[in-house]
Formats: sequence, C-alpha cells, structure tokens
Amino acid sequence: MILRIDRLQTELPPPSDPDPAGAAAVQELMGGKFGEMSTLMNYTFQSFNFRNRQSARPFYDLIANIAAEEYGHIELVAAAINNMLTGASADEQAPNDSMLKLKDQGINPQHFAAGGQGALCQDSNGKPWNGDYVFSSGDLVEDLTHNFFLETGARQGKLKVYEMCDHPAARALTGYLLVRGGVHQVAYARAVEKLTGADLMKLFPSPRIPTDKIPESKKHMEKGLHLQLYRFSPDDYKELVAVFNGPHPETGEDLEVVDHAPEGVPPVDLPAQPSVFAPDYAPEEIAEIAQRLRKEAGLPDEPIGEVANA
Amino acid sequence: MILRIDRLQTELPPPSDPDPAGAAAVQELMGGKFGEMSTLMNYTFQSFNFRNRQSARPFYDLIANIAAEEYGHIELVAAAINNMLTGASADEQAPNDSMLKLKDQGINPQHFAAGGQGALCQDSNGKPWNGDYVFSSGDLVEDLTHNFFLETGARQGKLKVYEMCDHPAARALTGYLLVRGGVHQVAYARAVEKLTGADLMKLFPSPRIPTDKIPESKKHMEKGLHLQLYRFSPDDYKELVAVFNGPHPETGEDLEVVDHAPEGVPPVDLPAQPSVFAPDYAPEEIAEIAQRLRKEAGLPDEPIGEVANA
Amino acid sequence: MILRIDRLQTELPPPSDPDPAGAAAVQELMGGKFGEMSTLMNYTFQSFNFRNRQSARPFYDLIANIAAEEYGHIELVAAAINNMLTGASADEQAPNDSMLKLKDQGINPQHFAAGGQGALCQDSNGKPWNGDYVFSSGDLVEDLTHNFFLETGARQGKLKVYEMCDHPAARALTGYLLVRGGVHQVAYARAVEKLTGADLMKLFPSPRIPTDKIPESKKHMEKGLHLQLYRFSPDDYKELVAVFNGPHPETGEDLEVVDHAPEGVPPVDLPAQPSVFAPDYAPEEIAEIAQRLRKEAGLPDEPIGEVANA
Amino acid sequence: MILRIDRLQTELPPPSDPDPAGAAAVQELMGGKFGEMSTLMNYTFQSFNFRNRQSARPFYDLIANIAAEEYGHIELVAAAINNMLTGASADEQAPNDSMLKLKDQGINPQHFAAGGQGALCQDSNGKPWNGDYVFSSGDLVEDLTHNFFLETGARQGKLKVYEMCDHPAARALTGYLLVRGGVHQVAYARAVEKLTGADLMKLFPSPRIPTDKIPESKKHMEKGLHLQLYRFSPDDYKELVAVFNGPHPETGEDLEVVDHAPEGVPPVDLPAQPSVFAPDYAPEEIAEIAQRLRKEAGLPDEPIGEVANA
Amino acid sequence: MILRIDRLQTELPPPSDPDPAGAAAVQELMGGKFGEMSTLMNYTFQSFNFRNRQSARPFYDLIANIAAEEYGHIELVAAAINNMLTGASADEQAPNDSMLKLKDQGINPQHFAAGGQGALCQDSNGKPWNGDYVFSSGDLVEDLTHNFFLETGARQGKLKVYEMCDHPAARALTGYLLVRGGVHQVAYARAVEKLTGADLMKLFPSPRIPTDKIPESKKHMEKGLHLQLYRFSPDDYKELVAVFNGPHPETGEDLEVVDHAPEGVPPVDLPAQPSVFAPDYAPEEIAEIAQRLRKEAGLPDEPIGEVANA
Amino acid sequence: MILRIDRLQTELPPPSDPDPAGAAAVQELMGGKFGEMSTLMNYTFQSFNFRNRQSARPFYDLIANIAAEEYGHIELVAAAINNMLTGASADEQAPNDSMLKLKDQGINPQHFAAGGQGALCQDSNGKPWNGDYVFSSGDLVEDLTHNFFLETGARQGKLKVYEMCDHPAARALTGYLLVRGGVHQVAYARAVEKLTGADLMKLFPSPRIPTDKIPESKKHMEKGLHLQLYRFSPDDYKELVAVFNGPHPETGEDLEVVDHAPEGVPPVDLPAQPSVFAPDYAPEEIAEIAQRLRKEAGLPDEPIGEVANA
Repeated sequence: MILRIDRLQTELPPPSDPDPAGAAAVQELMGGKFGEMSTLMNYTFQSFNFRNRQSARPFYDLIANIAAEEYGHIELVAAAINNMLTGASADEQAPNDSMLKLKDQGINPQHFAAGGQGALCQDSNGKPWNGDYVFSSGDLVEDLTHNFFLETGARQGKLKVYEMCDHPAARALTGYLLVRGGVHQVAYARAVEKLTGADLMKLFPSPRIPTDKIPESKKHMEKGLHLQLYRFSPDDYKELVAVFNGPHPETGEDLEVVDHAPEGVPPVDLPAQPSVFAPDYAPEEIAEIAQRLRKEAGLPDEPIGEVANA
Repeated sequence: MILRIDRLQTELPPPSDPDPAGAAAVQELMGGKFGEMSTLMNYTFQSFNFRNRQSARPFYDLIANIAAEEYGHIELVAAAINNMLTGASADEQAPNDSMLKLKDQGINPQHFAAGGQGALCQDSNGKPWNGDYVFSSGDLVEDLTHNFFLETGARQGKLKVYEMCDHPAARALTGYLLVRGGVHQVAYARAVEKLTGADLMKLFPSPRIPTDKIPESKKHMEKGLHLQLYRFSPDDYKELVAVFNGPHPETGEDLEVVDHAPEGVPPVDLPAQPSVFAPDYAPEEIAEIAQRLRKEAGLPDEPIGEVANA
Repeated sequence: MILRIDRLQTELPPPSDPDPAGAAAVQELMGGKFGEMSTLMNYTFQSFNFRNRQSARPFYDLIANIAAEEYGHIELVAAAINNMLTGASADEQAPNDSMLKLKDQGINPQHFAAGGQGALCQDSNGKPWNGDYVFSSGDLVEDLTHNFFLETGARQGKLKVYEMCDHPAARALTGYLLVRGGVHQVAYARAVEKLTGADLMKLFPSPRIPTDKIPESKKHMEKGLHLQLYRFSPDDYKELVAVFNGPHPETGEDLEVVDHAPEGVPPVDLPAQPSVFAPDYAPEEIAEIAQRLRKEAGLPDEPIGEVANA
Repeated sequence: MILRIDRLQTELPPPSDPDPAGAAAVQELMGGKFGEMSTLMNYTFQSFNFRNRQSARPFYDLIANIAAEEYGHIELVAAAINNMLTGASADEQAPNDSMLKLKDQGINPQHFAAGGQGALCQDSNGKPWNGDYVFSSGDLVEDLTHNFFLETGARQGKLKVYEMCDHPAARALTGYLLVRGGVHQVAYARAVEKLTGADLMKLFPSPRIPTDKIPESKKHMEKGLHLQLYRFSPDDYKELVAVFNGPHPETGEDLEVVDHAPEGVPPVDLPAQPSVFAPDYAPEEIAEIAQRLRKEAGLPDEPIGEVANA
Repeated sequence: MILRIDRLQTELPPPSDPDPAGAAAVQELMGGKFGEMSTLMNYTFQSFNFRNRQSARPFYDLIANIAAEEYGHIELVAAAINNMLTGASADEQAPNDSMLKLKDQGINPQHFAAGGQGALCQDSNGKPWNGDYVFSSGDLVEDLTHNFFLETGARQGKLKVYEMCDHPAARALTGYLLVRGGVHQVAYARAVEKLTGADLMKLFPSPRIPTDKIPESKKHMEKGLHLQLYRFSPDDYKELVAVFNGPHPETGEDLEVVDHAPEGVPPVDLPAQPSVFAPDYAPEEIAEIAQRLRKEAGLPDEPIGEVANA
Repeated sequence: MILRIDRLQTELPPPSDPDPAGAAAVQELMGGKFGEMSTLMNYTFQSFNFRNRQSARPFYDLIANIAAEEYGHIELVAAAINNMLTGASADEQAPNDSMLKLKDQGINPQHFAAGGQGALCQDSNGKPWNGDYVFSSGDLVEDLTHNFFLETGARQGKLKVYEMCDHPAARALTGYLLVRGGVHQVAYARAVEKLTGADLMKLFPSPRIPTDKIPESKKHMEKGLHLQLYRFSPDDYKELVAVFNGPHPETGEDLEVVDHAPEGVPPVDLPAQPSVFAPDYAPEEIAEIAQRLRKEAGLPDEPIGEVANA
C-alpha cells in the first residue's frame, strides 16, 4: 500500500502564458508508450507479480521502490499540463463568442470538451494509455532488460518534448525528469549487469546527449540528483544498496541511495477556469460551502493543506 | 508523491488449489471499467487536476486520500490473481507434454503466454485497461457524482465476481473490497450531499444486498471497517472530517476518520513457477547472485524485507 | 427520428437449456465487423450524411429505410443471446459454491461479471464494436458497393454462427436473418446495377449455399420474406420501388416493396436472474414498487405492455 | 423494431460559413463517451436486456422510450456536423492547389480523407465510439443511476461544446440538446427516486448553470420542451406516466408525458461537395439516373420526400 | 518467404519545402482502413490461409502475387511521408526556442514526439493500424469480392489525399498508386467475374473520375502501367495469366502479365534530422564507426548500396 | 520492394489431430506484442525511415535484411495455426448438430465465426495486432537497443508457447523460430556493441535456457542455423558482414553471413474445410472453373505451383 504526501518532487514555475498546443504535446509524457503512466505501471505490476521475492530481495526492492517514485512523475506531468492550460479559455467572453480559437491551435480538443483544462490519461495524439504497455513477464532478467529499454525510450521522449515545447513549465518538467529518469536508467542497467555480467555502462547517455548540456537538467545535477536513488518508504526497500552502487556512467561520481523521499515543494493551487466549470461555473459557491463544512467540523479558519501560492 | 509500504491492506489465504479460470474472471476487478485501476486512476487524476483546491480543501482531501487507498486495492487484486495462478502449470512435465491443459479451462492465455502466471493490466475478457475509463471533468459536483456511481458499479462488479469464483483467495479479496468500496461509496455520496443537499443515503446498499450477508465481508464489519476512512498520509488530507461524518446509511453507526493507514499484513512470498520462467528457469541462480550482492553491500544474512511465509 | 414498436420482427423459441458458450459465439452477429451493429450504423450514418438527396431520392430512401430494419436485427440478436443465457447461473446455490462452472465453458466472462446475463455490444472475442466499422464515404456508388459487400460478409457470418451453434434460439435467429439479410444484399446489388449497369445478380448466393437449404430459413421463404422489402416508415421512403424491383436472383420470383413494417410478435419476457441481480437480487420488491406507481398514475391493474408469455 | 420518420426533431439554421474545426469539436457529442451514440446505445441495450419487464413495466417503458428519442439526437448531431463542413473544400480549384488549407485549421482529417465532409462515428479526438461505453448491468437501480450520471456528463459535454463553438449550427444543436437531455436527466433521477426514495432533485442543474441562461435553450423552454417527455411509439410505452411526473426541479412546473413524437421539421438537403465525391464527382449524372428510375417506377416528376429547402 | 530489393517502385521528387500537415494526412494511405498496410496484410493473410490452393492455383497466385506488390506500396507511402517531414524541425535553434511551431500546423505530434520525423503505422487521425482491418474469410468468392471493394475504397482514399495535399511528393505518390491500385481493382474484378460470371467491368472507374485526368497518373498510363500486372517472384505465381486477361475496362486495351518486377529506382537517402536524433544527435559519429566497421570487414571504401542522391 | 518465393523457410509436419485451443495460443506468436508481426513491422518501418543511411550502411543493411526474414516468420506461424485448425470442424454433421463443440475448448471463436479456420492478425486473447507495437524512433542506438529487447521478449514468447502447446506443428514452429530469433537477437546485440562498446554477449541466452536443450531447436543447430544470417536479397544488403561477425555468445562458434535465402520447402496444401466455406462450400466447383481458366490461358494440365503434398 502507499501513503501520499501532498508535495511535488520538484518546483514548476507558476502559470504564465497559456500554451494549449504545448500541453497537447506534453501528454506524450503522460500517456505515451514511453510516458510516466507506463513507467509507473510497469514497475508496479512487476513488483506485484514478483515471485520468490525473498530470495531476490535486492531486485524486488529496486523495482518496487522505483515504482513509488514514478507516481510522483505522473503528478509532475499533470501539474505541467494543467499549468500550460491555465488561461487558455477566455474568462469573460463577448456574447456569441467561442471560448477558444480552435482554428489557430494544435490543441487536444478533449482538454476542453471532456476535461476541465486538465491533464488526460492520453498521449500526444489523444490516444488513451492502455494496459498493453505493461510488460511483466515474471522473468527477472527480462523484466530488468525491458525496464532499461523503457527508461531509454522514456529519456528520448523527454528530450523530444523538450525540443518541441519552449513553455517554461514544459522545460522545467523535462529538465527534472531527464535527471531522475537517468537515475532509473542507470539503476536498471546496473541490475542487469549484476545478474548477467554484461557491461551496459557504455550505453550511456542514450540518446547520446550529455544530460548536463540541458540547462534545466544541469541545475539538478549540480545538487547531485543524478546520483541519488531515493528510498520511498518509511521502513521497506532497504536492500536497494545491494544493486545501486558504483560509479555513474557519465560523470564517474559515486551512486548513492538516499534514505528518504525528496523534500519536494507544495503544489501551486491553480486558479479556477469557470468557462469549463472547473471546479464550477461559480467557484465561490463551493468555497462558501467548504468553509461552512470546515467550521462544522471544528477545523481552523485557514485551510490546513499547504500550497505554494497560499 | 507517495511513500510505499510493503504490506497488504488485508490478509489473503495462502495459495491452495490453482484456479486459472477464476483468476481470469478476477481480472475484471483489476482492469475492467469498474475495476480498481479505474478507481485508482480516476481519483488520482481528479486530485491532480483539482483547481482552486485551497477553497474546496475538504473535497480535495477526500478525493486525493481515497486515491491513495486504491493503490492498495490494485495490489490486493494482483495478489489474489497471483495466488490463484500459483501451481497452474506443471512443475515437472513428462517429455513432450504441454505445460497446462488448455482445452479444459476458461483461462486467459496471456497469463501464461505473456505474463509469468501473474496479474495483467486487463479485464476478464483480456482487454487492456485504458485511460478512457478516467473521468476528470474538473467540475466538482460532476466528478463526485461520477465517483459515487463508479463505486456503485464497482460494488456490483465485486459482488458478481464473488458469485463467479469460489476460490478462497477470490472470496477473501471480494469480501474485503466490498467493505472498503462501501466506505468510498458512502464518502462520495456524503460529498455530493454536502454540496447539493440531495439525500443519497437511501440509495444504499446498491446492489440491494446488505453487505453483512456476505460472510467474508461480515468479519471486517465486525471490526468496524465499514465505518472508517483511513487517512493515508503522514501529514496531509486532514480535512476529510469535514465531509466524512454522520451515520452509516446501512447500520446507522457513526462514520469516523482514522488518522493513519491500516496496519496491514506482510504479503505472501509466492513460489517460483519455473515453467514460465518466473523469476527464472533456475531461480536458485538468482538467489545465489542476490545473496552475494547482499553480502557485498554489508547487508545482514537474512533478507530485511518481511513476508508472511518467511 | 424514429418511433419504436415493442415487438420483435420474428419469433424466437422460449428459453430452453442455457448455452452460454453459444451465446458468446452469437455475439459475433451483434458486435462483429459484419454484425448487425455494423449494418445498422453504416446505413444510419450514410443516410445522415447523404448530400443532394433530393436528386437521388430512390437511393436515399433505400439506405435510410434499410437502416430502420437493422435496428430490429440488433434487437433480435440481443433477444437470442439473452434467451441462451437464461438459466446459465444457478438460482439456488450450495453455500460456498460459485454461480457457474467457469472451467467447463467457452463463455464470455463479461456476460456475468459486467452484464446481467445479457447481450453486450461486443463480438465473439469480447472485443467492443467500434465506429471504425462505419463506412460513409459520401460517394454513392462507393457506399452502395460497400453495402453490398457488407451484406455478403454478414451473410457469411450468419452461416458460420449457424454452423457453430445448435441452440434453437441461435438457429431461429440465423435462419431469419439469412433471409432478411439476403433481401438487403439483393437491394444493394440492384442499386449498384441501376447506377452503373454492372450485372451483379450472378454473385448470388454468396456464400454459394442456396438459402432454402437451411430449414430455419426455408419456412420464411415459403411466406415470401425473401422477396419483400418492408417500408419502415409511416410516410417516408416511398421511392424504394424505383430501385427494388425485378426478379430475385436465386428464385426468379418478383421482388416487391411491402408498404409497412412486418407485423412481428411480442417479445418473450425473460425471467429474472437473481444471481446476477437482473433486475435485482429480490425482483419482487421492484415489482411491488412498480405496481404502486402504476396505481398512483391511474393505470389499470394489468401492465399495458404486451409480452409473448403474458 | 422501429419506424423511421424523415424529419429532424428541431430546426438547424441553413449552412453558412464552413467551420471544419468546430465540426471536429462537435464530434464529441456524437462519439464521445458522453455523446449521443452513448445515450442511444446504453438505453437501447438496457431495454433489450431488461428481464422481468412485465413486473417493472413503468421503468422498462421509460428506458425503451428514451432510447427512441436518442436516435433523433445522433441524427441532429450529424446534421450539425454536416452543416458546418459544407463548403469547407474548394468547389473550384486552381490547378496544383489543394482542396483545403490543412495548416490553418484544427480539422479532423478523416472528415475529408475518409468521409465525404460528413459526420463520423468518432469523438473530438478522432477516436471511434466503442461498445465499451455501454453499461447494461441488468440491475435496475444500477442502470438507472448510471443513466442519471450519463445524462449529467452529457449535459456537461453539451455545455462545453457550446462554449467551444460559436457556429450557429453548433449553437442551435447544443441549445436544443441541453433542453432535451435535461428532460432525460430528470426522468432518470425521478426513476431512481421512485425506486429508492432518495431525493435527487437537488442535484439540478448540474453543471450548476440554469438552462434558461442559454438563449438557444431558452426559446425551447418557452415552448415547454423542458417539461415534456414525448412518447415515441404508436402503441407502446404507455406506462411512462407512472414515473415521469411531479414538479420540474429547476422551475417547479409540472412534468408531463406527451402522447406523440415531436412534429419536427424536414431536414435541409445539403449541397453536393464534388471535391470529396459526395455524392459524386459529377452529381448531375446520378440525378439523371435517379430521375429515369423514378419514371420507370411510375413515380411523380417531383421527388416525394420532403426537405426544408425544396 | 520474400527477397527484398532496395529500390522504390517509382520515383518521388527530392525533398523540397517541408509539409508536416500534409504528411499527417498522407498517413491515411499508410495506416487507414483503406491504406496500403491494409491491402498488404489482407492479401498476405489470404494467401497464407488459402486452402486447397493447388485446385484453385490461378486465384491463389493472383492474391499472393499482388500481396508482394503492396509491400512496395507501404514503402512508397513511407518515403513520401519522410520526404514531406524532412526539414520540418529547425536544424539550428535560437536558445529557448522550440523545435517547431506547434501552433501553426495540423501536424501529427508523434511524428516528432515518438518518431524521428518518420512514417508511423497510423492513419491520418493518429490511430494505429490494426489487424481488425484484415479480412480473410477463407471463402474465395467472398475474399475476392472483399478485395475488389477494398481496392475501390483505397482508390477513393488516394483521390481524396491527392485533393488534400499539393506537396509534390504527395502528388507523385498518389498519382502512381492510383494507377497501380487500379490494376489490382481490375484484377480482383476479373477474378470475381471468372468465378461467378458477374460483369463488374461497368463499375470502373470508381470513384467515377477517369484516371488519365490526373496528370501525375497519366504519365504512368502513357507507359502502359495501368495494363500490366507484374509478377513479383523469381519462379512462382505463373498462373496469373489465367485470370488477368481481357480488355481494360476504361481504355479497352489488353491487360497483360509482365514477367518480372518493375525496374524501380534507388531511394533518396534523406538527410539526418539531428533535432529529433535521427539517426543521432551527432550523425557524423555513427558515420565514423560505420566506416571503421566496413574497413574491418574488408568492404570497399564507398558504400555498396545504391541511393538516388549518391 | 520485394520478390516473393512460394516456399516456407522450414518444414512443418503434415496436419494431424486438430488442436484449436493450441492454435488460439499460437496466435500470440502472430499478433502479440512480441509476435512476428511486430518483428516484421518494426524492422520494416525502421528501414523505411532510416535517415543518412549511406553513412551508416552496415546498420541499415542489417535492419532491412532481417525485416525480410521476418515475413517468412509470419508465414510460418500462419502455416502452423492453419495446420492445427485443420479438421477442427466436422466434415459431415448429424442434422441439427453444431460444427464444433464450443463448450469443450479454449478456442478463439473468430477462427470459425470470422475466419475459415485460418490464422488471424490477433494475439492469443483475440486482440488485433496494432501499429502501436512499432517502434521507429529514428535514433539508431535506440532502435537497435529496442530490437535487441524485442527479440529477447520474442524468445520468451516462443518458449512459453512451446511450453503451452504440445502439438507437433507448434513444437516444430517454435523450435525453428527460437533458433532464427536467436540469430537476430545476437545480430542486434552485436550492432549495439559495435556502436557503443557495451558488451551484451553475457546477456545470452535470455531467458536463460540454452537453446540446444530444446530438441526441436537442436536439430536446426546441428545444421548451423544458429550461426547464419541469410542475406535475403538478390543484390542488396551486402554490408551485413561489417556487423554480423565474431563468436556466437552461447557456443563460441563463428557467426557467418550466408549469401542467399534458405532453400526452404514447398508449403503443404491444406485440405478444404467446407463447414466454414474455405475455399467454398463445394470446393470442387472452384477447381473446375480454375481448370477451365488454366486451359484457356494455355497453361499445362497440372498446376505449375509446387506444394509439399502434390
């Protein structure tokens, strides 16, 4: 089971100019074959289905623990998409005017017609993510080889979306994910090596662009985030260290297991978008009801939850 | 982000007679339109996309927190499926003999041909779960109404699978999920009521079978699990109490928020299935390597992770 | 728009021995590429999208009118499936016994786990029908050529399901649909001929099995049903006669337009299946409520609607 | 079975400026999860699969009768899409010039590359409608709860498309559907109430925008269309009155069952689009053939069928 | 089995102005229901599944041989798409600038986010081609009737894409495919005629636009390509002549079997697109490695393979 | 483009006892994510989309050439499925008896209801193969890494199907494909090594079962088939040797490029299955027509094409 912490793993800039076409492209990182739904669900199912786990504990711990980090990644992708969609519909319209200029933009129409200017469980073509993207063969070498390849494909996807979108939220997102995905790519390569003896370190970086060439990644590398595998559990997955060790393939620095989750940051509370009824056509009515309920429950006047823009 | 705890929310019996046809049916609770992947991902996306959350904090907390519980539900469904598939292939075969008697069984062939006798991200017809099952409209009343209906459909699915499968793991699974899903059903009904004033309590139980008629559910009700909404977070989602309160619609007892996750139980470490190479054709080789790696990392002789059948 | 008449176009036998595997196969005639959903929706969309219809009225009338008949065909397929599923779950179970013997049967699990022993919008592999099966190119010759081929494929599907299933409901269904689909096949062939001059009559029968070799079809042919195109409208589609005329390609008899819908028969009211909660776990409660509501509305004591087994 | 009437349930304006991007968005109302194909097919399958219908006649009649109205709704959506696509390709092109300016527009390419500037069985992302959108559980309370939620989601979809598209055909379409969908939403809420006692009237309107704030809806409300449930059958479904009664939740006026279908209007006969060969590259040839066939069949000189722009 | 020849069946112009929106539309000819993947795979599976082939050799040879030509067609479609995508991303970007202007274009985002500005196995809506498009009923008359209709639909698709795209590569592609597809359309019509006696020649051309009205087709017709069925095998499929003979339905000229494959032309070697890492971020490194490997293997200094732009 | 040779790459036994459940499982090797459709189409698209191919000729030649072999593999899988389905329906039925005993068997119903007891473009769950399984990123290292992983997954699939099916055709098929897939796995590993320096040879075999333990594979290894990469082209792909060289990772023997395709064997001409109309209800009529056509075309009395069972 999981505990949930209401913080993002890294900071994204506050919403600026809306970029609905960019948001449509970023969906590839959510619901594409190599998006974060895929990394999350692959490792999740592999950990569920892991047989004889006690005898192979370090590998089980590795897969199960990385799965936990990936939940934070779908959260970040969603935050970036929501950020880029904020403001994409007119707050106040002239009568008989449509909410957005469909003709000018490479939008995903369902961001507006189905969702509330919010992230969808789809790729950049509007195709829903599906369970066929999950590979959980039961064979450990196979699953780990798969995972290494999945992270490689995911790294490419992130680089390509970085190239496609210059919106600051997209850039901050991909800069961070490239560093963290890189850690997972190394971790799975190491695991394959430990099991088979094959030296995979020479495959890095793949695509062959040093991560530190990307400014939005470099700032995280300067803090050592490319070296650290967080342990996302209060008490479990302590055998990570048996696999995740040795030098980083690109920089030669020592890999290390960090014994906690990242500190993270509170999420930005994105403004209502009344044109799509998110969270309502008249959000202030919901606010009133919520305030009343909070009172009745004896909660303090100010909301307890923390947001970046409180 | 999340933390992961390597425990199951409830206990399942150890593997007994294999039941691959039953396992194929239980997949409906994993990847069906009303399965646990759907509840998990609906609430996850709704929480990600929640706008103006500070002003509607009790509702945000409710959705985000229930999402966290659902991760434990896909874990339980997977555990039951894996349990039921254990032993379904011959460990030792006569030469020229096939691994399983395909002709006799309503199996999901991909449990063997693609997976390693492990859970798939599919429904009972072998159709992959897909992101189209996620409803995240941004409109709070709408999303909550949807969630109430989703839990209603999910309750029916659990009841039907209960009826279809008499394997003890399937019965233990559905007995527990009926109780916990019932809590979510009440929670969303209450949320809709709080926002709109509509009295939904008369819709319970739906389907109209009192939950305590089901022996595998009753034992959980006797512990009060039908009344308790766990708070699945170290520090967040504290405004649940503003929504989840009042009498239970079936029993009249008081609903309560429990300020922690359930204690849970360690998972059963299911045995290797070498016929499908899970985790290997010769699992003892992996065990040896793992043991060596553990030593090199200075870990104790015994694995640190806990399992039920240590 | 449509009016709905609560009668089936032909009679099916009352439910006898359940045949869930057969019902799974009959789904091909519902949701398969060449099933009745496809014929219904192809002609429906073609009629909606028909441009310049006034100038091509006889062809428009033909397509629009045949669409109307197809609605009655999905109704018949559903009736046959429901019939074959009736009784497939135990009414009274021993404790700890499952509702049906999954292992013995080539069932569609969703007939039980998702539906209430009722027809699904799927094919015989449990794959949902989808809108990709609709061809509506706008080009009249093309659409008519397509329709002729669609009916040809549909005829083959019916023959194959006839061969696969010996349940009396499946046989009665396919026997009737072969005759009526044959009329549509002729109608579209004639339409192509009228537009292009190509003689398609020599393509009949296709597959090359005379329809009257099938006893369940022959009895309908003896009443002339293979010759008659019903006009399914109170006042419209009167130009059918301009296309549907000449000799029948197999028998040489004259084709004729019949100026009304078939008389049909009232549907069988299939019994409740409480194990799958259809229409309820305790159907008698619903009956009571319904009776009360009828009273309050001043309706007579006996239900007004007609069923075969009243 | 059905009878078909060649009239639209309401009037749409004649084609004006083409709006292919708008037409792509309106597809959400055709083939989206909450589009009219979904309402049509959900109620259709539920009526087919209704067990013990004689004992629950008022509910059966309600579902079966609303299904009939929905056919007219897919017809209207198609008419609006076809209207908006009319003129979107050049009638006369400069040599070496393409039919439409792909780069400028958020079009659905298959409106041109597959269809003949006509409606497709797809959603706004070009994803085909599929049978997985049909919920027919057999459990009456469940099915009715689902239907209430489906209508709620459908209302939201219509409002969102209203916001996205300012083309007069899209506005006329959504204005009308909002009123009629509202009637169905009330009808299903009432049915749930009658069966369970739960008061759902406070959920209206949902989304919380009074329908009469929408000018294109208001004009229909002024005629009372928000209060009337048409009976779409010559002789059946007479027990609607037992469920559909009481005050309208928004206006307090009395709900009423109207004992016939709406009068409707003849459809506009949309002009040929020769660039996409609809109905032909040279539509006048088809016209000639049709005229000859009509003569041979003894039909009058003028087409019998009625269109708005005769 | 097959042998592969590294030549295109016809010449396409060298890359000129990029046209990513056009490339997105041309995908319909690759992965659409009537695209070249469909013709290839339909005939391939029909030939694999052909029973009693020795007794029906001329028909078997026809289907198997046309399948072989279709492989060259998917190759051509890919070449056109790749051509049109060449240059669509900036080679040198200003810092903080995105690779392409997403907002201006009706692109397929996966051409950039998933592929390397290369052809995808999708249609113009970004929907993947799927095996449901394969019809292989086993019934020879049926399969041939299907194939005739498939080619008819494919001809329409090509004409429509011709109309949509004025890029010279798209025009050269469709001009050629219209001629070659026309040969297949005639071949299957002839096969149906030979088996059944039905005269299908009057159905040509369908759509009813004489092929020679299209300049890009006419130049191929002037070389007789509309009359010739190539035999794509060193030693097999020699009984084509028994079916493919008689006059061409549009021109009356004699059809003929040509006893070899077309000569074809070497493909254009399209330039690297480093922004999408195709074949690399720094393609010159791959070139160096390749050159070294070639040396080590004793290959000549110049690559042995032929390209148009050597 | 391709030339087609009407021979199978290896011999399968003649049809023996039908095994429709086994045939359903073998479909995984056709249309599964790791089936032969996937290997064929991945390498085909990668070769089509290869940019700067002249500078990277050895790698281009490798991918393009292996694509050619894969066509022969889908052909073999189809042949095995058809073999196993032969005889699965009754040739002569008692009246009112169904063609096959649906209840006893884990069949794919569409083998009978849609196809003519022939191979489908589906996986073992009846899900169609789709273009989403194609990875063609344009990045050479990535594509090769993918291909290595794809072959690894494919090897596992073959081993699992080997375990599931003891029918002689399934065993002969998988025995051969394991050897040939192994060659491709080595080839792609070698290619990755040549480009990056990473030593992948230690990953073999994966799954970790020596191929020569499988009797049906061993006989091919004894002929050296595990060492040989055929060149499937009359004149192209001559630079294979620059990549495919060095020792075999399992046996240490030298890898070699063979300068031609395998000799292969003529296919078995499988008998008609009249119950499913393949190729007809009365196949002798087709035979007569074919014979007449052959005569008219001046062909010899005996069919020219070669089959194993002439």
